[in-house]
Amino acid sequence: MVGGTSAIIDLALREDIGHRDVTTHLLVNKEARGTARMRAKETFVLAGSEIVSQVFVRLGGDVKTTLFYEDGAEVHAGDAIAELKGSLRVLLGGERTALNFLQRLSGVATETRRIVKKVEGYPVRILDTRKTTPGWRALEKEAVRIGGGYNHRWGLYDGILIKDNHIGVAGGIVRAVERARLNAPLLAKIEVEVSTLREVEEALRAGADVIMLDNMSITDMKKAVDFINKRALVEASGGITFENVEAIARTGVDFVSMGALTTASRAVDITMEVERYLE
Amino acid sequence: MVGGTSAIIDLALREDIGHRDVTTHLLVNKEARGTARMRAKETFVLAGSEIVSQVFVRLGGDVKTTLFYEDGAEVHAGDAIAELKGSLRVLLGGERTALNFLQRLSGVATETRRIVKKVEGYPVRILDTRKTTPGWRALEKEAVRIGGGYNHRWGLYDGILIKDNHIGVAGGIVRAVERARLNAPLLAKIEVEVSTLREVEEALRAGADVIMLDNMSITDMKKAVDFINKRALVEASGGITFENVEAIARTGVDFVSMGALTTASRAVDITMEVERYLE
Amino acid sequence: MVGGTSAIIDLALREDIGHRDVTTHLLVNKEARGTARMRAKETFVLAGSEIVSQVFVRLGGDVKTTLFYEDGAEVHAGDAIAELKGSLRVLLGGERTALNFLQRLSGVATETRRIVKKVEGYPVRILDTRKTTPGWRALEKEAVRIGGGYNHRWGLYDGILIKDNHIGVAGGIVRAVERARLNAPLLAKIEVEVSTLREVEEALRAGADVIMLDNMSITDMKKAVDFINKRALVEASGGITFENVEAIARTGVDFVSMGALTTASRAVDITMEVERYLE
Amino acid sequence: MVGGTSAIIDLALREDIGHRDVTTHLLVNKEARGTARMRAKETFVLAGSEIVSQVFVRLGGDVKTTLFYEDGAEVHAGDAIAELKGSLRVLLGGERTALNFLQRLSGVATETRRIVKKVEGYPVRILDTRKTTPGWRALEKEAVRIGGGYNHRWGLYDGILIKDNHIGVAGGIVRAVERARLNAPLLAKIEVEVSTLREVEEALRAGADVIMLDNMSITDMKKAVDFINKRALVEASGGITFENVEAIARTGVDFVSMGALTTASRAVDITMEVERYLE
Amino acid sequence: MVGGTSAIIDLALREDIGHRDVTTHLLVNKEARGTARMRAKETFVLAGSEIVSQVFVRLGGDVKTTLFYEDGAEVHAGDAIAELKGSLRVLLGGERTALNFLQRLSGVATETRRIVKKVEGYPVRILDTRKTTPGWRALEKEAVRIGGGYNHRWGLYDGILIKDNHIGVAGGIVRAVERARLNAPLLAKIEVEVSTLREVEEALRAGADVIMLDNMSITDMKKAVDFINKRALVEASGGITFENVEAIARTGVDFVSMGALTTASRAVDITMEVERYLE
Amino acid sequence: MVGGTSAIIDLALREDIGHRDVTTHLLVNKEARGTARMRAKETFVLAGSEIVSQVFVRLGGDVKTTLFYEDGAEVHAGDAIAELKGSLRVLLGGERTALNFLQRLSGVATETRRIVKKVEGYPVRILDTRKTTPGWRALEKEAVRIGGGYNHRWGLYDGILIKDNHIGVAGGIVRAVERARLNAPLLAKIEVEVSTLREVEEALRAGADVIMLDNMSITDMKKAVDFINKRALVEASGGITFENVEAIARTGVDFVSMGALTTASRAVDITMEVERYLE
Repeated sequence: MVGGTSAIIDLALREDIGHRDVTTHLLVNKEARGTARMRAKETFVLAGSEIVSQVFVRLGGDVKTTLFYEDGAEVHAGDAIAELKGSLRVLLGGERTALNFLQRLSGVATETRRIVKKVEGYPVRILDTRKTTPGWRALEKEAVRIGGGYNHRWGLYDGILIKDNHIGVAGGIVRAVERARLNAPLLAKIEVEVSTLREVEEALRAGADVIMLDNMSITDMKKAVDFINKRALVEASGGITFENVEAIARTGVDFVSMGALTTASRAVDITMEVERYLE
Repeated sequence: MVGGTSAIIDLALREDIGHRDVTTHLLVNKEARGTARMRAKETFVLAGSEIVSQVFVRLGGDVKTTLFYEDGAEVHAGDAIAELKGSLRVLLGGERTALNFLQRLSGVATETRRIVKKVEGYPVRILDTRKTTPGWRALEKEAVRIGGGYNHRWGLYDGILIKDNHIGVAGGIVRAVERARLNAPLLAKIEVEVSTLREVEEALRAGADVIMLDNMSITDMKKAVDFINKRALVEASGGITFENVEAIARTGVDFVSMGALTTASRAVDITMEVERYLE
Repeated sequence: MVGGTSAIIDLALREDIGHRDVTTHLLVNKEARGTARMRAKETFVLAGSEIVSQVFVRLGGDVKTTLFYEDGAEVHAGDAIAELKGSLRVLLGGERTALNFLQRLSGVATETRRIVKKVEGYPVRILDTRKTTPGWRALEKEAVRIGGGYNHRWGLYDGILIKDNHIGVAGGIVRAVERARLNAPLLAKIEVEVSTLREVEEALRAGADVIMLDNMSITDMKKAVDFINKRALVEASGGITFENVEAIARTGVDFVSMGALTTASRAVDITMEVERYLE
Repeated sequence: MVGGTSAIIDLALREDIGHRDVTTHLLVNKEARGTARMRAKETFVLAGSEIVSQVFVRLGGDVKTTLFYEDGAEVHAGDAIAELKGSLRVLLGGERTALNFLQRLSGVATETRRIVKKVEGYPVRILDTRKTTPGWRALEKEAVRIGGGYNHRWGLYDGILIKDNHIGVAGGIVRAVERARLNAPLLAKIEVEVSTLREVEEALRAGADVIMLDNMSITDMKKAVDFINKRALVEASGGITFENVEAIARTGVDFVSMGALTTASRAVDITMEVERYLE
Repeated sequence: MVGGTSAIIDLALREDIGHRDVTTHLLVNKEARGTARMRAKETFVLAGSEIVSQVFVRLGGDVKTTLFYEDGAEVHAGDAIAELKGSLRVLLGGERTALNFLQRLSGVATETRRIVKKVEGYPVRILDTRKTTPGWRALEKEAVRIGGGYNHRWGLYDGILIKDNHIGVAGGIVRAVERARLNAPLLAKIEVEVSTLREVEEALRAGADVIMLDNMSITDMKKAVDFINKRALVEASGGITFENVEAIARTGVDFVSMGALTTASRAVDITMEVERYLE
Repeated sequence: MVGGTSAIIDLALREDIGHRDVTTHLLVNKEARGTARMRAKETFVLAGSEIVSQVFVRLGGDVKTTLFYEDGAEVHAGDAIAELKGSLRVLLGGERTALNFLQRLSGVATETRRIVKKVEGYPVRILDTRKTTPGWRALEKEAVRIGGGYNHRWGLYDGILIKDNHIGVAGGIVRAVERARLNAPLLAKIEVEVSTLREVEEALRAGADVIMLDNMSITDMKKAVDFINKRALVEASGGITFENVEAIARTGVDFVSMGALTTASRAVDITMEVERYLE
């Protein structure tokens, strides 16, 4: 595809395989074919499953991939996730790279699902941030959605978010919002980051479409939500964890954004077994 | 450099900035210049600091980077890590990408250091694995070294490691090792993955240079080390955690490899403040 | 820079120079140096002037470029636009490519300025479209701004514009807007393309932020503007020319988008003279 | 193919689609399929039709393209040019890019045909120049041929054309031609640009294979042609328009080269309708 | 594939075909199809035959390639090596590039076979070096194997070879080996380059796994082999030719490495005839 | 530069260095600096010397290169060719790649000079062919010129050469030449390959600008030259060696093209010594 996925896959294969998989080259004939199964070793939310076949396609083998679950499914230890048939050299050469993608993306989806469930019933959306793994933006944003979260902007190019540094340069919230609106793209809303109630008031007065409450206490958040009173969308951000996310949801904010979805989730455990060899 | 670092930096900048940093473009003049400081928000081992200036260089600005610590230093909440001077647009445009690299790599080094300290005094080396973030192999391997760990092979191309799937195809450990040795590169040692004491014996008989004990109980590990008795190097692998690593070190293995160094470490917290504007 | 500018410059130089500028290679010594001047041969609005030095930089010579005007300036026949000093081989090799960029981008800015002047005094903005030259999106969007126009979205990725085909699939305007809003990015406004007054009413009811009147008669446009009555922003689009743009502005629409800015503007005439040779 | 076509298509898709077509993603299911028709909205000469399927192929969908006309055909308002069947997301995502190519290239072919018809009956060939859109050299050269024109050299690498700047450096026409011939590639003819009758005489004496009359009056052109009297090929160049091209043809020159074929032609009007949805 | 083969093929096709094969374009219709045969014009060892179809695949034609011999086969003047069916334009456009690869790689295999045969019966292996054609590392290493040789390390990244310059910096052989071993990758053996018997003794004492005798006299080589007495592997290197290789093998060294396999072999003679045209 | 030189250098460095120069990394500090000298080990014609500094530049070090000879100079065993100062790691990492380029290109220049000297005094030019090392076209063509030879066309794109296969398709020489001339680029001469005297006569009649005598006997060549009698340029080609080239020159042909310049020349011997270390 046109996006960055093929670039990161190629980078990954090149760094892992280099000039060749020496061990496999020594021990497995070019003609050998096999069947491999990827199997969950714990409970998690599957994500990134489409990358599996892409990895093997880019290795040039005619590997056939059958997926037993769709992204978003909860799988359990022992469940077979995918079956792969094809050249044994290609299967063994691509194994680690395919797993590395799958394990990490499923980790992001699993962590997201855990957070989303914690706030079930509240009219709030869990958002990702731009704190993604460099090179993985599209992949991780997708994994967040699969886990039940929503995406904030994809990058600096598709949304206006006026942060403290911008406000400092512009000389205050009102002037920053005014200056931004003057030339803002036709289809862009304007979000402003604030950290005090006084700034909330300022942002509202300036006509911000969305107000981001950055690192506010829950008490202040509640006050801010009440004060704003639906005149702008409200996003809570900064220092949000599994432990405090429900309390924050209870304040009535529309969105909660959490860098931890992508910075603190760990890779889940998946294994690949080559089950039959047809030489 | 020739390696993959510039490729992953470019990928990261492209996915974050796209056609432009819209907000900054609206609010910061092209000529504005500023000074920014990256500051630790918790205690961690610094890694990846050289990437900071590379990120800004690739953005085309004439940003001057001063590092206050070298990779490997332990920094604490509040410490200034780096100062950057240059075009404000470039500083704000590259901020998130630079931090994303720095936070994640420092996380890997910090986790490695924690493990390494746990086994201090034992004649054992902590090794990374190939379970790295796709696209980040070189960066994460470096971070592991910075944290005090050692690198296992960099990829499938620079070391012979005969795993269960290879053994299955070759028809046993002895035949696999023999076949590999026949055409092995002149300068390559041969490592064999085993999971039972019987296999340990077989690998040793086959003349393996290194024997990897995969997911063995600590009792069996100890027996294996005693049996091998320095006739080959011994690596413990699989299911190793901060909790059990010392017990494993105590068995006398030469190496302990842990995927968790790179799959379960979380990004550390670093912030960037733009401290002065000279417009 | 990270964007596509260097890619299109490289493509252009490669297709023009190929393995070498044969004529210049035969007739000009490697050491020969010269001074060149780019000079306007008609009146136009300058745009793309920064590309001139980029072209020569990418050719590897140490050409020094001095610009006599900034982008946006109106220049007249005979005016010197830029002076270039450096390797004569490089100057002659890059001449055509640099001029091809400069002439075409200045053409876009000039045409935009002509339109913008026509509607001076009306509270309307002239917008570009996605009908840009493939490969030139960023360059032409910039030239439109230089000419006094504004940019519509940069691509399919940074704005929601629901067009007739989308409406058809979704089953009506209201359902399309509702479905879009459900998952729309936090910071995105929603624009809907309509072509009848009934659709205007529907789009308004659905809560569209911006309504695009596509190919409407001026009478209907006027009715639409009155009916909408500031409840949404209004964009006129389709079949708009220098001749009818003022009448359209008079209807009170907020935006007029014109593909012709980039599809029907012609390259302006600029020449490059090598004025001195220092061999 | 090996040439630059795939590079410019990729550039175009990337700049238009970016991380994704947001609107279509929100409103059209991944599985939805459709049929689209590209239809002429005015009379023109078709060119670039093969790019249509290439655009969709590179988007990764299995879009089937049926062309109803071959390049070079004259189509009229209402004529269906191509039918496309496949993934609706892909059809909508590639629409604008495909049309942008098709409209612009057909514009070049149409303008060329108009000029060529004007000089029908004269033994003269209409040539393009190197004043093409950067990145589009091969595409536009092909469109000129489709319109009935001929190609001058493709770049600086495949032909020797000694221009005024070269002559200045070499110290006169005769010395320039002599020096060029000394090392000229075996298979290259030598063309010299002249602007006075005295220079014509000089070029002829120097043994130029082709003489380019640059910006000469029609009277002088006629004199030059008579003087040269078939001893060299003659090309007229500079300031040639639809209005004066016939008068120039009448002078007996062999070639007329016109930058305007590619710098002043406008994109023709083509639309794409999605006619059926099969969801 | 992931390796560098496709990169060098693309480079080769681009430099040979450029914007198009002008002659073929003028004389062969787009639809013309043909059958071509590659035929040996002398006796040689075939190598690189898989590249033939890759070249034509990358040209985008649907050329079917049938190989009549496998790599490693000895072919003789007149033997048909491959048959190609497909677009005549593609066949003629790719001919030279395909042959250039095939002829050169077969030359390397042929030269290697000649050397290998010379030492048949001796327990010695002929090794290549890093003196390969830049860009061709993987291709030439493969050709050496096809000819019956073995590969030394593929690059600086997959083996430790301590050469004189390293020894100088480190302050002697023993210190160099010690320092290297301290941080050497787990799976790497250590080879040391020596040129005197005293250094042989030093290298052995330092515990080198492999000792490279660089440019030693045959008498000294023999002494070295006797002294080492299987305690390390022994490689002879430097100034080895077809003439002296057998005498060197007779000294009992385990390996003989020869740069000449890749620096002094010449391309063999192969021709391609287009046998039938089906227009 | 825009040509393919940087691409092949990058390819070469990547394949040789990969993720890093392991040995040097282990034994040489990052800060160590040194001075290296490249020294001839035999007599040859220097070519490709500019690539030396390019190799080190692309490695990112601040290596200063001083060349003691210009390309084309004859150097002798012991002569220092270049001095390099800079980071020792970079010097050792780039050594082999730089030498591999220099040795091979000097080999081509040396072989060319040997041939050129053999025919000194004859009004004949020695030409290269398209039988160059894939990826090295520009480099080897340049080396041929440095050796005193001339370049035939650079690729299929910059010259018309009608070969037997083209003639077969077109139905004879006359028809082929006529058809080619009809649409030939304005600045292209037409060369025809012939192998009998009857074909010479036909080519001449068809108006070929250059006639290539392919694999003709010297007697027939002489007859052909006499028959053509300056009415076309004459090139001898096929089976030409150092042994027969003078006899061929004596026939009066204008050009002799020899694939052997690039297919049968061997790399010359050059060494690099690191003379001082400043740690």
